[in-house]
Amino acid sequence: MEKRKVAVLGATGIVGQMFLKMLEDHPMFDVALLSASADSAGKKYSDAVNWVLEGGIPEYAANMNVADSGALGSGKGFDIAFSALPSEVAETIERKLAHGGRGVFSNAASHRMYPEVPVLIPELNAEHMALVDNQKKKTDGFIVCNSNCTTSGIVMALKPLLKFGVKAVTVYSYQALSGAGHPGVPSLDALGNVIPFIKDEEEKVINETRKMLGTVKGNWVVDAPIDVMATCVRVPVRNGHLETAVVELEKEPSMEDVKKALKGLKGMGGALPTAPVHPLIVREEGNRPQPSLDVMAGTPERARGMAVSVGRLHFYGKRLRFVSLVNNLVRGAAGGAILNAEYAITEKYI
Amino acid sequence: MEKRKVAVLGATGIVGQMFLKMLEDHPMFDVALLSASADSAGKKYSDAVNWVLEGGIPEYAANMNVADSGALGSGKGFDIAFSALPSEVAETIERKLAHGGRGVFSNAASHRMYPEVPVLIPELNAEHMALVDNQKKKTDGFIVCNSNCTTSGIVMALKPLLKFGVKAVTVYSYQALSGAGHPGVPSLDALGNVIPFIKDEEEKVINETRKMLGTVKGNWVVDAPIDVMATCVRVPVRNGHLETAVVELEKEPSMEDVKKALKGLKGMGGALPTAPVHPLIVREEGNRPQPSLDVMAGTPERARGMAVSVGRLHFYGKRLRFVSLVNNLVRGAAGGAILNAEYAITEKYI
Amino acid sequence: MEKRKVAVLGATGIVGQMFLKMLEDHPMFDVALLSASADSAGKKYSDAVNWVLEGGIPEYAANMNVADSGALGSGKGFDIAFSALPSEVAETIERKLAHGGRGVFSNAASHRMYPEVPVLIPELNAEHMALVDNQKKKTDGFIVCNSNCTTSGIVMALKPLLKFGVKAVTVYSYQALSGAGHPGVPSLDALGNVIPFIKDEEEKVINETRKMLGTVKGNWVVDAPIDVMATCVRVPVRNGHLETAVVELEKEPSMEDVKKALKGLKGMGGALPTAPVHPLIVREEGNRPQPSLDVMAGTPERARGMAVSVGRLHFYGKRLRFVSLVNNLVRGAAGGAILNAEYAITEKYI
Amino acid sequence: MEKRKVAVLGATGIVGQMFLKMLEDHPMFDVALLSASADSAGKKYSDAVNWVLEGGIPEYAANMNVADSGALGSGKGFDIAFSALPSEVAETIERKLAHGGRGVFSNAASHRMYPEVPVLIPELNAEHMALVDNQKKKTDGFIVCNSNCTTSGIVMALKPLLKFGVKAVTVYSYQALSGAGHPGVPSLDALGNVIPFIKDEEEKVINETRKMLGTVKGNWVVDAPIDVMATCVRVPVRNGHLETAVVELEKEPSMEDVKKALKGLKGMGGALPTAPVHPLIVREEGNRPQPSLDVMAGTPERARGMAVSVGRLHFYGKRLRFVSLVNNLVRGAAGGAILNAEYAITEKYI
Repeated sequence: MEKRKVAVLGATGIVGQMFLKMLEDHPMFDVALLSASADSAGKKYSDAVNWVLEGGIPEYAANMNVADSGALGSGKGFDIAFSALPSEVAETIERKLAHGGRGVFSNAASHRMYPEVPVLIPELNAEHMALVDNQKKKTDGFIVCNSNCTTSGIVMALKPLLKFGVKAVTVYSYQALSGAGHPGVPSLDALGNVIPFIKDEEEKVINETRKMLGTVKGNWVVDAPIDVMATCVRVPVRNGHLETAVVELEKEPSMEDVKKALKGLKGMGGALPTAPVHPLIVREEGNRPQPSLDVMAGTPERARGMAVSVGRLHFYGKRLRFVSLVNNLVRGAAGGAILNAEYAITEKYI
Repeated sequence: MEKRKVAVLGATGIVGQMFLKMLEDHPMFDVALLSASADSAGKKYSDAVNWVLEGGIPEYAANMNVADSGALGSGKGFDIAFSALPSEVAETIERKLAHGGRGVFSNAASHRMYPEVPVLIPELNAEHMALVDNQKKKTDGFIVCNSNCTTSGIVMALKPLLKFGVKAVTVYSYQALSGAGHPGVPSLDALGNVIPFIKDEEEKVINETRKMLGTVKGNWVVDAPIDVMATCVRVPVRNGHLETAVVELEKEPSMEDVKKALKGLKGMGGALPTAPVHPLIVREEGNRPQPSLDVMAGTPERARGMAVSVGRLHFYGKRLRFVSLVNNLVRGAAGGAILNAEYAITEKYI
Repeated sequence: MEKRKVAVLGATGIVGQMFLKMLEDHPMFDVALLSASADSAGKKYSDAVNWVLEGGIPEYAANMNVADSGALGSGKGFDIAFSALPSEVAETIERKLAHGGRGVFSNAASHRMYPEVPVLIPELNAEHMALVDNQKKKTDGFIVCNSNCTTSGIVMALKPLLKFGVKAVTVYSYQALSGAGHPGVPSLDALGNVIPFIKDEEEKVINETRKMLGTVKGNWVVDAPIDVMATCVRVPVRNGHLETAVVELEKEPSMEDVKKALKGLKGMGGALPTAPVHPLIVREEGNRPQPSLDVMAGTPERARGMAVSVGRLHFYGKRLRFVSLVNNLVRGAAGGAILNAEYAITEKYI
Repeated sequence: MEKRKVAVLGATGIVGQMFLKMLEDHPMFDVALLSASADSAGKKYSDAVNWVLEGGIPEYAANMNVADSGALGSGKGFDIAFSALPSEVAETIERKLAHGGRGVFSNAASHRMYPEVPVLIPELNAEHMALVDNQKKKTDGFIVCNSNCTTSGIVMALKPLLKFGVKAVTVYSYQALSGAGHPGVPSLDALGNVIPFIKDEEEKVINETRKMLGTVKGNWVVDAPIDVMATCVRVPVRNGHLETAVVELEKEPSMEDVKKALKGLKGMGGALPTAPVHPLIVREEGNRPQPSLDVMAGTPERARGMAVSVGRLHFYGKRLRFVSLVNNLVRGAAGGAILNAEYAITEKYI
């Protein structure tokens, strides 16, 4: 298969960096363009970026010139855009690209709540791609969002539980610093401290969860009727959002039923290089998952960080408690968008 | 007033250290004896302890000899015992002391669930001291427990909400490393990580909360009929347990009603040196409380760390969310026990 | 004694915050004015500041209005200015104040290398105040600098060693995050990491050490002929710069001689409220000093954080190795400046 | 080539874990036996180990039975032993194995200072393998040590500088927590703190550096005449020892000469799977190396963590300052031993 030419927008930020890392030697994609803010435009990528990920700048990207995100227009020179743009500029830029015929796979929040845009995790709600069919009636291109990093950790564990009748879920997060980008949280606020507030995050978790678990009806998604409560808290961890949840169920499944359901969440098969064989990993140990041990869960090699780990399953009557862990930069950001693009290609959307 | 002679049991551990620090120049107490395990017995305190608190060993304690906790018998030489003993030995030793006529104020978990022993926070459930009257019918001395460090943070915020009809509460903790003592959690497990398990802690939070908010009926406490769910998680913070909770209420108070109720929790007045003027502090800022800023909340000086801070109040329908912060070594351990003893003396129990 | 009216310049930064904390209830000073950048001017202090120190904003300061540092002119309304201004603006503002008759005690680097300005630690080089006599021939006011935070930790340990003939010193630092201010170092760069570079810091340590240990000759200081080498490194510690040094000596003192010399560094006596009784504390334990245990060294209460701790003394032939610890926000910044002002008042410079 | 059967001794510790990780799918080795203390003997490895490395227990090892290290005798069933034994038991066990004909590649300190045992880094002192020829005159097997983790970081940077006449070196370390094993340093001692003492470490750095850079003369090594001073300090970093050094040189090379020398340190070529192409990487950026960015330096994939990074080169007159970073678990421990074994096989020592 011929590789598709892709652009990485917002390539100097931490999610942009993860895009570049995960796209290195990717069998389906060829990075043709990097963009960032006007300040960085015209520079060599290695001069423009303050690289913070382990392993350093991928060789292929170091000498590429950085384009101005605001001047991409309809997106000449690439078929697919991976967007790590800041929300405040993402909306306009991504829309122009979609109108220009590009497939936009966005990590930005701007379009997530638009009725015609799916918030996609292929293992969960592939049927939401029907919205893209609608989009394509109007424009050549389209926009597909991945969810917020915190939403992805909870929604992947909730999906298999839907059959037990999920009425309400109370979510608390233990979110890593990388979720705030770089420079992000000042070290004096982070070190040895816990900050019980992350701007706009709780609303995102609530709204995205309902949409992602909802049902496509005509031109939009009818939200799942789940009462979601979310409290988002920053902890001094580098990478990996841990989340705890108590779920109110209508039915009374046994613990074995629950585990079977979770383990039964199907992977996308070998066709998608970034898809993990097992998207959900159920840990039986009493003290797992943990960021330092489980943040890179997922096989094969290219899918490291794409599996969500779930543990500490416990019933309080009809309420089920669990703890989940998601790699916020991989499954919760760059990897999620890449998997969405792989899926869209396989399904001939682009 | 003549100072009472007190012993600190388990004086070399981190809670023992905090007892010594808080008892320095205390107007009501005079430290007459320190005890620790047989290994340390006979040593000078400064040789026996691996001191980990800021400021170093209080001068008065450095040269005291350490007695063997297991050989204290009925407790000659002191009236009051502050116990920071490990649970596995606390039960027998504390019981002997109580039979010997001592007032035992214990931070150990061993006696908390005994029907005849109050788990006391004077601002909340002073009436539970009626159990001590019962104890004193049988023995000259008595045992009063303070709650587990995590329980104290949640129960202080719940008490003023009882009048709105608390049906259920889901608690998640972000617990500091000092709660595990020293050596406690290995640094490789703690640094940049979150551990979603603390042995026996969830059960303690559940059971103690119900008991502490319950009602004395004759010789025991009838538990409060509250459905408590707790998930306890360790985070890389030195000191200060942050907790988040969602409370299901029967009534529908306004936010103003809730704040008024919380702020209205009465302090013990100036008679008790370690009692904070305001036991509950309601933070209006969107990102408080935080361990690094609020762990020493409480006035006057001697009551620093004795106030619990509450913030992020929010309604999801009839469910109320809040975040609380308790100094686990002070209000949640040594300071809690000292306040209990101050109260018992003032009320002539000893 | 009547209290002097003082201004705190740059009051919203972390050193400004520490000034406000240390000036609370100060027996010699009355805070009459707070200033910050034009952005903050006109606001209430509590609205302008992002407070990061434990314990919160001192009550006396919370409601004060913030003045514009750039518009202070000659400094009406106060006698003494404590400057925590950023270097890039400090020079002009401080100079105007000195010309206006104010005594300026500055933590900024701008004036430290001017020949007519002393870099003062009263216990070390009080005789450098002779430079102020020179300044006062030209202006009513004057400028006195305290040293860079890292310099203060090393120079206090070196001074008593001068009598053994200090030829060269190799310094390595383990510097706390608070030294970079707030927001300062991004948490992703700091957490679980070490950064072997701090802008301009090594030059400051080298130049200030030579000047501070030098000798006043007429209108300037002749540098001490010591070969200083410094490598400055940031570590994930909140507060407290640890430094290690190897000193080449001309003489061959015994270890007892060395300890005696260090312990012999005289305090300023009880007249200066912020002066510690023992400015240098020699730790005999094999693993001290440590930031978490020793950062607040110093008695009495008001001098907490003003003592430098020294340990791990060892000879390699004629080379002496030691480790020192300085509280970079207290002795190394706000406390240093306050002590300098206390000294200047006592000596009738103002 | 047929794979050699190897044993990993002390397989449950953190270095043992790294051995297992690095030996997974190794082209030259087949793990035939795991041993640990008597407590673990007889258990399945996954039950015996408290695994702390990212990625979890390698599948091949999880179900292996653990043997008792003390009962290995002459080592039936394997040709090569990788030893991560604690020093206190390593000496006897390793010696028996060598007498039994095994090639022992040890990370333990016990034998490093024996005259007949080389402390080997093949890129530096391959000629020290002559000592093994001597050993083999007496026993069928032999012992080869790798250096202490901290020594490896400094000695690799010093070796290329020898031609400029290294007279003395002052070393200061910023050592990671993993160097102390697990449980190792308690989190309360580590978090937000710096501990300026590591037992026996400074002596090791001093003695091993001299030996490793020395010259084989007959049956032993004549130490390099370098005056080594070392101060070893623990910092809250997970993995990666950063070290700073000032080196006194006889000659006066230009900075270009120095860089050329460092970059010129030759790799072992492609024959040794764990050998990095470039054993020393010179960083030109002003703030590198850093643990979080550079700890996995080294190519190809199997040699990740085997390269030492050097930066911040600066001359103070004839003294050269540099900062180096070594992966203490890889190049400084398991990887070092594995590379030594690969070299010994290639050179037909076994």
